[in-house]
Amino acid sequence: MSQITPVPDGTVTSAIGFSAGGIFAGIKTRGEGKKDIGLLYSDRPCDIAGTFSQNSVVSPSVTVTRGLVQSGKTIRGVIANSGCANCAVGEQGLIDANEMAAIAAVRLGVDADEIAVASTGVIGVELPMALIREHAPKIQMTDDGGDEFATAILTTDTHIKHIAATFRASGTTVTVGGVAKGAGMIHPNMATMLAFITTDAEIDSAFMRQTLTDVVDLTFNQIDIDGDQSTNDTVLLMANGAAGNQTISGGDEASADFRQALYTVCRHLGRELARDGEGARTLITAIVEGARSDEDARKAARSIASSLLVKTAIYGRDPNWGRILMALGKSEIELEEPKIRVFVNDIQIVSEGKAIAYNVQSVVSALGEGEVRLRVSLDVGEGRGEAWGCDLTEEYVVFNSAYTT
Amino acid sequence: MSQITPVPDGTVTSAIGFSAGGIFAGIKTRGEGKKDIGLLYSDRPCDIAGTFSQNSVVSPSVTVTRGLVQSGKTIRGVIANSGCANCAVGEQGLIDANEMAAIAAVRLGVDADEIAVASTGVIGVELPMALIREHAPKIQMTDDGGDEFATAILTTDTHIKHIAATFRASGTTVTVGGVAKGAGMIHPNMATMLAFITTDAEIDSAFMRQTLTDVVDLTFNQIDIDGDQSTNDTVLLMANGAAGNQTISGGDEASADFRQALYTVCRHLGRELARDGEGARTLITAIVEGARSDEDARKAARSIASSLLVKTAIYGRDPNWGRILMALGKSEIELEEPKIRVFVNDIQIVSEGKAIAYNVQSVVSALGEGEVRLRVSLDVGEGRGEAWGCDLTEEYVVFNSAYTT
Repeated sequence: MSQITPVPDGTVTSAIGFSAGGIFAGIKTRGEGKKDIGLLYSDRPCDIAGTFSQNSVVSPSVTVTRGLVQSGKTIRGVIANSGCANCAVGEQGLIDANEMAAIAAVRLGVDADEIAVASTGVIGVELPMALIREHAPKIQMTDDGGDEFATAILTTDTHIKHIAATFRASGTTVTVGGVAKGAGMIHPNMATMLAFITTDAEIDSAFMRQTLTDVVDLTFNQIDIDGDQSTNDTVLLMANGAAGNQTISGGDEASADFRQALYTVCRHLGRELARDGEGARTLITAIVEGARSDEDARKAARSIASSLLVKTAIYGRDPNWGRILMALGKSEIELEEPKIRVFVNDIQIVSEGKAIAYNVQSVVSALGEGEVRLRVSLDVGEGRGEAWGCDLTEEYVVFNSAYTT
Repeated sequence: MSQITPVPDGTVTSAIGFSAGGIFAGIKTRGEGKKDIGLLYSDRPCDIAGTFSQNSVVSPSVTVTRGLVQSGKTIRGVIANSGCANCAVGEQGLIDANEMAAIAAVRLGVDADEIAVASTGVIGVELPMALIREHAPKIQMTDDGGDEFATAILTTDTHIKHIAATFRASGTTVTVGGVAKGAGMIHPNMATMLAFITTDAEIDSAFMRQTLTDVVDLTFNQIDIDGDQSTNDTVLLMANGAAGNQTISGGDEASADFRQALYTVCRHLGRELARDGEGARTLITAIVEGARSDEDARKAARSIASSLLVKTAIYGRDPNWGRILMALGKSEIELEEPKIRVFVNDIQIVSEGKAIAYNVQSVVSALGEGEVRLRVSLDVGEGRGEAWGCDLTEEYVVFNSAYTT
């Protein structure tokens, strides 16, 4: 495998042929530097792959984009808004999502069915189409507009999240870039995970789709902030082939590198989403190794990272390993209790399923570092998995309850 | 079906032949009226049925009691302690659970394998057996000792929870009584749901086991406080036949009445557990009707009652129906969005999947009543289900994080 190289200040427009921009239209309340409509554009057609919310209630914005992915046709761009989820608004939702695509298409000089749509924000409120009609056409597209797009999709996130990485394939450099926004609320409402990944790779469509599904399972599907699944979750991968490499279609080094670059981008974005969870102070990485299978390990890691009692213990800087064992076991995977070992930032605190005499102060100190690794070794197999979460603080509760309508 | 009659001030000793008592041994920190060991006794052998934690890590106290249920033998009593979960302590845990049973057996003049064991409290700490050896033999057993037993099993619960109900069967009165304790922590640790149900019914063993499993699915398995599953959860049903009724074995009116009485007792206890969740101010009842099946309805109701975003919205007295729809859909059951109706304490706020013009103040006012009913009508079938939860407040976070070791 060749090397995956990070791109300094990499964004969703780092790959060749992509440009982006954003604008403030007034869908969100006004604030310094705020934007609420973003446009992402490729100067040539993109093959696409996507994964979407499994919620039985989804936004018509998801319906439109999922339809594009299912059609197998290429697209040229994305219009995304924050401040309104365009969800649970009846038939108007689909009309508005389609009009958003049409507005973006006119601005970019392409067809409306070449534009994907994404929305995030309050549920149950119709999109303010007059604002979108007025402002979206004014968005300036630039090759370094990744920052603007990243800003335009934020809701209660405290910072933008993006990254890009490159690898060499058939004598050329291939770039994979990505941007995401995390769970938050705008008005007092649940929000959404949105992620857009761009690449200039020339890549086989079937291979790209399978690889995205696999990588999302290892990354975005392994993060937990509050256990709630949005109606608007979208991960969209766009490949425009501008790098001019030989088609990546699986089974060779370039394919492995593409997968690794995509994994690097998605893992980074997923971790940043967890770190920036509402009210969070600490990123929790749960690692389970020695499980019967990778699937068991991922399931157990996710159970640890999503346990409220683990999250509150980490917030309290309490090396409460009993809760880690509870959360591990709650996953109902196969284990042998007398073999369990637990480590907090590599300090072992449990051996043979029981507490050992560790230096409590050094663990309490480790728990104050802003990033905590909870590693559980099961010693019943070779399976390994990671998951990411964040601590649960009073601020989460205040954030999600204080604004009464 | 004949009538199920509540017993005024009914307890776990309301059924004929049951007595109980409790004592403070010092397993918990001292406090007015506190007790931490409880004994429950039947003056004749009891057929038993039980349901237990599905956690891969369980307390040896659960192992002992589950073994008794599996053996098919009768038992005579229960010893339960609070303050220590007797979990994740290696081989000592089983030795101690067996010794607890032996101590209770000596006190009650029965065999050690006729005593069930239950523990709740901090994980990872060995039972203080010297205290148990000293104090358990002093427990006074009385016919009205249900209060003492109910007190002895509490952890962070704010009040005791018990109930009894009767029905007439073959010319005699049959009583079903129950006691439970809920989720809390003692030291900074997760705790446990324990429930003990007693009846003087003469009842067929297989029918009793199946009925308990069915009723637990409708009641205890439909409550959620924080999504975490204890290592010590136990529901134990003891039937001693003292009422002298004709054997209840399914298919007749007495069987239906027994099931209804058991349901009444378990539903009451489950609701009280949810109401008394750590830091909770409001009991949330989620009702889903018109689903494809009862199973779908229960799944969706549980998803609503356990959503953090619903819980925080209720705490904030925010009629945030978008979150209710999100939580409903997260269950991934089949639905048709344009048919969805949502009611808060019978005030309709959503019709055809969209908000309707309701009086926000009357809903906000309803949300301040200490008990909130969120009812969702799906209109795609006849399935109906209920679930219970509680609001999420800052106090939950403080409770579970403030005490660092």
